Amino acid sequence: MGVGDGVRGELIAVGTELLWGDRADTNTLVLSQALADLGIEVSAKTLVGDTENDLARILSDAMARASLVILTGGMGATHDDVTTRVVAKVAGRRLTLRDEVLADLRDTYRRRGREVPPSAERQALLPARAEVLPNPVGTAPGFRLTHEGVEIVALPGVPSEMRAIFEASVVPWLTERTGGAPPFPRRTVHTFGLGEVAVDDHVEGLVHAAGCEVGLLASPKGVEVRLRAMGKERTRERLDSVVDEIRRRLGDAVYAVDGRTMETVVGDLLSARGWTLAVAESCTGGLVGHRLTEVPGSSRYFFGGWVTYDNRAKTEWLGVDPSSLAAHGAVSEPVAAMMAEGARRTARSDLGLALTGIAGPEGGSPDKPVGTLVVGLASSSGTMTGRWRFHGPRSETKLAFSQYGLDTLRRFLVGAPPCLSTPDLVKKNRSR
Amino acid sequence: MGVGDGVRGELIAVGTELLWGDRADTNTLVLSQALADLGIEVSAKTLVGDTENDLARILSDAMARASLVILTGGMGATHDDVTTRVVAKVAGRRLTLRDEVLADLRDTYRRRGREVPPSAERQALLPARAEVLPNPVGTAPGFRLTHEGVEIVALPGVPSEMRAIFEASVVPWLTERTGGAPPFPRRTVHTFGLGEVAVDDHVEGLVHAAGCEVGLLASPKGVEVRLRAMGKERTRERLDSVVDEIRRRLGDAVYAVDGRTMETVVGDLLSARGWTLAVAESCTGGLVGHRLTEVPGSSRYFFGGWVTYDNRAKTEWLGVDPSSLAAHGAVSEPVAAMMAEGARRTARSDLGLALTGIAGPEGGSPDKPVGTLVVGLASSSGTMTGRWRFHGPRSETKLAFSQYGLDTLRRFLVGAPPCLSTPDLVKKNRSR
Repeated sequence: MGVGDGVRGELIAVGTELLWGDRADTNTLVLSQALADLGIEVSAKTLVGDTENDLARILSDAMARASLVILTGGMGATHDDVTTRVVAKVAGRRLTLRDEVLADLRDTYRRRGREVPPSAERQALLPARAEVLPNPVGTAPGFRLTHEGVEIVALPGVPSEMRAIFEASVVPWLTERTGGAPPFPRRTVHTFGLGEVAVDDHVEGLVHAAGCEVGLLASPKGVEVRLRAMGKERTRERLDSVVDEIRRRLGDAVYAVDGRTMETVVGDLLSARGWTLAVAESCTGGLVGHRLTEVPGSSRYFFGGWVTYDNRAKTEWLGVDPSSLAAHGAVSEPVAAMMAEGARRTARSDLGLALTGIAGPEGGSPDKPVGTLVVGLASSSGTMTGRWRFHGPRSETKLAFSQYGLDTLRRFLVGAPPCLSTPDLVKKNRSR
Repeated sequence: MGVGDGVRGELIAVGTELLWGDRADTNTLVLSQALADLGIEVSAKTLVGDTENDLARILSDAMARASLVILTGGMGATHDDVTTRVVAKVAGRRLTLRDEVLADLRDTYRRRGREVPPSAERQALLPARAEVLPNPVGTAPGFRLTHEGVEIVALPGVPSEMRAIFEASVVPWLTERTGGAPPFPRRTVHTFGLGEVAVDDHVEGLVHAAGCEVGLLASPKGVEVRLRAMGKERTRERLDSVVDEIRRRLGDAVYAVDGRTMETVVGDLLSARGWTLAVAESCTGGLVGHRLTEVPGSSRYFFGGWVTYDNRAKTEWLGVDPSSLAAHGAVSEPVAAMMAEGARRTARSDLGLALTGIAGPEGGSPDKPVGTLVVGLASSSGTMTGRWRFHGPRSETKLAFSQYGLDTLRRFLVGAPPCLSTPDLVKKNRSR
């Protein structure tokens, strides 16, 4: 295996279910990030079923391309678990029974008050001269061997076991082999209120000039700018200066960096002021409260709220004036304001946030189409409202509504103007 | 390409971001399912960056293994978009400008009131003699060609465009080529209240005897049994009889099949009785209301609810007796019962559901550890309570709590006993 920047890694995930298409493999995501942190680039990853011939060809081909191949999955105790057998065959080695692995297995089972089932003893059969990578949290060990200059690492597919073995045995070994190559620093800028094209126009030239790679991800929560420093001069400082410049260019649309959530940002702003919040939700059905309470310790600032799905709940619980409801409809500025004020008054909280809208697919009208949201925010300085529109299926619409509501609160707390316009929804024709 | 069961398909997704590890590729999931429905097995899928040499080797190797290779991504108008160039090179063909594609591009841009940018004209360069697959929803077309007996299909990476081209041009062609091979029927059984090992013990022998493949997926929402019929006799009827037998064996633990959600099941049960529901949530913060309102038309049976995060909200809004709160604590059967009854009374609904618990990571005690949930359910026939325990991080715990709450409601509505025990949490050592 080459040293430093020369390592070409490939990943292989083994398991027929991975090819069914109803869920994505997560092990290769974890490994990709862990290898990037070790300065090792992954040039390809392959998902293959637990069929001996298929895996043998996939593995041989990967070994011809890469200097490091890491396999996950297919390492259990059943006949479907083909990885160990195939690696031994491709590397031209016999399987040998490892007494130390068998002793470990017996220990583990004994601690659970059981004998090792005969099938589980198969896990002690490993390719000759392979180094055992002990499993700190389960029974199946991993192993490592070198064949014709290619390093092969095999790890079990249970995510917790894969991670534990990787951390304990693979990271120290790779760090030594690469001579401590610098990581590929990664950062993310989270925006809300700008469309993908607008964000792209702001960042594209900038990041290419700085030797970064950029990926945009648009979702109902906004547009994420994912950055990775590349090349020999891939320093964290260089990436930080790119992030600073992006924040400067995008201004108030940037609500967080590096994976912090909108609910965490809002919670910290409320905590810093010592303010409390009550929420009145109609169309979002409780999603804003759910998101606020995803943050540990949110009881310090989140008092509680109402899901006033039925109009009677709006009038009886929050004191919304029935004649306003009749005159303007539930999705209107007067009703959103009364909901927010009713929430603040009834909860005796510092702030009251209200959301009323039409999540669809039914219930729209020409002047209030599906996707219309009206937000109200009541504070000691008065009540503001904002109207917004989102285009998407019901579930995405509810998520976008909750994000707009929380962003309205964030902008109020930092003294920024509310985000009033619907972001442009044109998609760039890029791979995803 | 072989006919019927003989087709071996491989998928290649192109895009450097796919290797960064912060999100999974979804195009290959969609294609896997679509090919299974056409009776074509996918034997491997590979994710590779948009580097010309890497893609060329991955593609050549896949062509040596498979009779059908479908690529997605890397088909846009920028220099990073290497797929077309690489396919032409590997298949030994020149790139030729297609007048009909260029005319289409000009039409599309003209309808948007713009000229074709010179860079976008590159999308009209395709490998010689390749069949153009028109893009009904965007600008970049796909294409198809045969090289040394291997069919190669290239599609753009934008998911909506990939799907549109696949449906319009690839499905009819593949159906003809395979002679209408039977699909690989798939079904899913959704369970709650049993551990993965218990479910596995019930289904494993059964599905192997019936020539099915089975995959279990454990999550905070329960254990899913995913089934796929394999082999020449892969009829839907045969799979249905396996599903029936699994339902018989697992009984009340089965809450749905084939992707129906718990909130949909509960909503249909409420609708059938013409009953209304109000929900009082503490630890789940609004998640139960959010899930109930994910279902279009839920306003028919969901009246609304309270997020009584603060204890004062429990007493003031729902009439929970302060002395009971002081004596038993918020997470207790008496308080859960009073919350449920207060919700039902105040909303004047048929049912009141309440959840109070400790989502963690702080707030546990020896007799009420983190992960403890107490549910109350009030109806015209009285009030029942149930206590449960879940082990996991905060976010998973909230999700599991909401599932337990909804399942308690479901069991009440179908006349089944409540699920009282914590499912066993031992994981099978299987690939995932």
